[in-house]
Amino acid sequence: MLEERLKGIFEQVKADAILLETEFLRRYVTGFGSTDGFVLIDENSCKLIVDLRYFEAAEKALAGGPVEVIEGSLKKALELAEGYMTLGVPYPFIDLSRAELLRGAGHILVDCMPVFERAMAVKSDYELGCIRHACEIAEEGFLRLLPQIKEGMTEREIAALLEYNMRTLGASGTSFDIIVAIGANGSVPHHETGDTRLRFGDSVLIDFGCKVEGYCSDITRTFLFGDDGQHEEFKRAYAEVLKAHELVKERLRAGMTGKEADAIARDSFAAAGLAEYFTHSLGHGIGLQIHEFPYLSPRGDTPLTDGMVFSDEPGVYFPGKFGIRIEDSVCLKDGRVHSFMDKTEHKLVILSRKS
Amino acid sequence: MLEERLKGIFEQVKADAILLETEFLRRYVTGFGSTDGFVLIDENSCKLIVDLRYFEAAEKALAGGPVEVIEGSLKKALELAEGYMTLGVPYPFIDLSRAELLRGAGHILVDCMPVFERAMAVKSDYELGCIRHACEIAEEGFLRLLPQIKEGMTEREIAALLEYNMRTLGASGTSFDIIVAIGANGSVPHHETGDTRLRFGDSVLIDFGCKVEGYCSDITRTFLFGDDGQHEEFKRAYAEVLKAHELVKERLRAGMTGKEADAIARDSFAAAGLAEYFTHSLGHGIGLQIHEFPYLSPRGDTPLTDGMVFSDEPGVYFPGKFGIRIEDSVCLKDGRVHSFMDKTEHKLVILSRKS
Repeated sequence: MLEERLKGIFEQVKADAILLETEFLRRYVTGFGSTDGFVLIDENSCKLIVDLRYFEAAEKALAGGPVEVIEGSLKKALELAEGYMTLGVPYPFIDLSRAELLRGAGHILVDCMPVFERAMAVKSDYELGCIRHACEIAEEGFLRLLPQIKEGMTEREIAALLEYNMRTLGASGTSFDIIVAIGANGSVPHHETGDTRLRFGDSVLIDFGCKVEGYCSDITRTFLFGDDGQHEEFKRAYAEVLKAHELVKERLRAGMTGKEADAIARDSFAAAGLAEYFTHSLGHGIGLQIHEFPYLSPRGDTPLTDGMVFSDEPGVYFPGKFGIRIEDSVCLKDGRVHSFMDKTEHKLVILSRKS
Repeated sequence: MLEERLKGIFEQVKADAILLETEFLRRYVTGFGSTDGFVLIDENSCKLIVDLRYFEAAEKALAGGPVEVIEGSLKKALELAEGYMTLGVPYPFIDLSRAELLRGAGHILVDCMPVFERAMAVKSDYELGCIRHACEIAEEGFLRLLPQIKEGMTEREIAALLEYNMRTLGASGTSFDIIVAIGANGSVPHHETGDTRLRFGDSVLIDFGCKVEGYCSDITRTFLFGDDGQHEEFKRAYAEVLKAHELVKERLRAGMTGKEADAIARDSFAAAGLAEYFTHSLGHGIGLQIHEFPYLSPRGDTPLTDGMVFSDEPGVYFPGKFGIRIEDSVCLKDGRVHSFMDKTEHKLVILSRKS
């Protein structure tokens, strides 16, 4: 028996069966996380094939549900798939070795990822709960971090502390390598956390997130470590980024396309004469992957709907000077934006040197 | 112009050009690390294609060397590859979307991974230096951890502390999710670090490692948190694991196959009546990947040679009771085993409750 959500996916894929090996897709379908394993879905059943390391735990976790747990690995998965001519596999997430093996065994492959991608963009209550939890831990980890930040610390040390905080709060790990960018490093949107040391008067941009049951959170905060009186330009820009961030929360409605959502922030920056400094798109879907469908960008033509989770992350970057980004993970509910992040300050925080 | 190492690889692959997108392969070929990018190798040249985020840094890092840096992304890589009919790509590391795109553009694909795999197993002095550094940080992180371990801590907290230690010592991250297994959890070789709390008299198995310049270290230590006098069986087994671990270091010689190396430990356990408890293979290659060629297992038929780096990790597992594994990252030099791990104790450590 297939649950409704999976039935809908199966029908759209138009294959005799779907075979999944990728971790996050197995988890999406079964709710069970494991490093290795296979999922085989046909019209009437969903089977999870895991080896002895996971078999007992999977049986226990999925008892009484619609997923049948079978002990085995690749060989077993291939045997079970044998009877199906056409197999749906996720083209961007299956490697060519495996694909050639399946084709060599006589299967015709079709890409099931476009269907999964769209289905996965709309989260269930369980999924929203996991993301909310990952967001709570991220915020709490950041609140613990602020008083731990001292002059002279390196970006790397600050990142290590933040990760430590999130892990001890229950996260299974980060959702991506934490970005800590001090001063001018913040003007590189994907700065690689390094050995730059924190000095009085520096701006600090931290982009981070963690995972709970495989689900990600994503948040960015930018603040000042002491105010040396040289931050007029920074403060003006900060106010504009915050304005764009808040405008999106106020004005975005279900039914808008990703492009229309992006335009809320883009137009706001344009009105402030900052258009050229907003060098990326407004946001991206968040779920079992840190970047997923939908995309809130000038090229995003899909309408946003209730249950979607995505980032609201406008930013401006002044090369050689500083970068500012304010990002929340948010969801659409009853047609409007609800943020998962309400514990941490959005207004400019200026840490005291002695904090 | 191609450097010698790359020339040898290119000749063996037997394709008009090699196209690489996978991070660790790009790093192997160019020495430059970046999240995204492409490498195109033909008979006479090696080109690294990176976008604006990495272009300046790559040009600076590779100036004067044989690698040409070109700004661009996928589109540019496809353009540059256009003239080559046969393309070598790593089948286990290229996804089917990308493979179909290349085939659709008229390229014939061949798998270059078997050639890379064998070439990468023998490390250069630069690579040995990176691995040595990653090993030093791992050991130092562990030595810092021991006095930080307190009764009542969870596996997760211990793992978070160890990761924090390694990151602040300069690691860019862990080489895999740290395994902390308390008591009976240690009998599951790939136990998932969880919320079990440390009690007096518990055995603790920690399997961990970190990355430096992309290169991994891998180490396991098993110790007692206090001696409650109930550890006779554990201590006897520990002595046998240590014996097997040390025998491999003494007796393994270049020219032996992976199978013969594995047999040193396996025979030692058999003589002690513990054969059935050694449930995995002796070791695996270590480099830019945490598990790579060669494999020291009953099925390893490749001769081990100087310059190879691998793990020496015998272990025994008593379900429901405890597990013991002692693992060093080692290399073959002048025909014999040299361990990268000489700072941490191999003999049984018993932490004092008040340590």
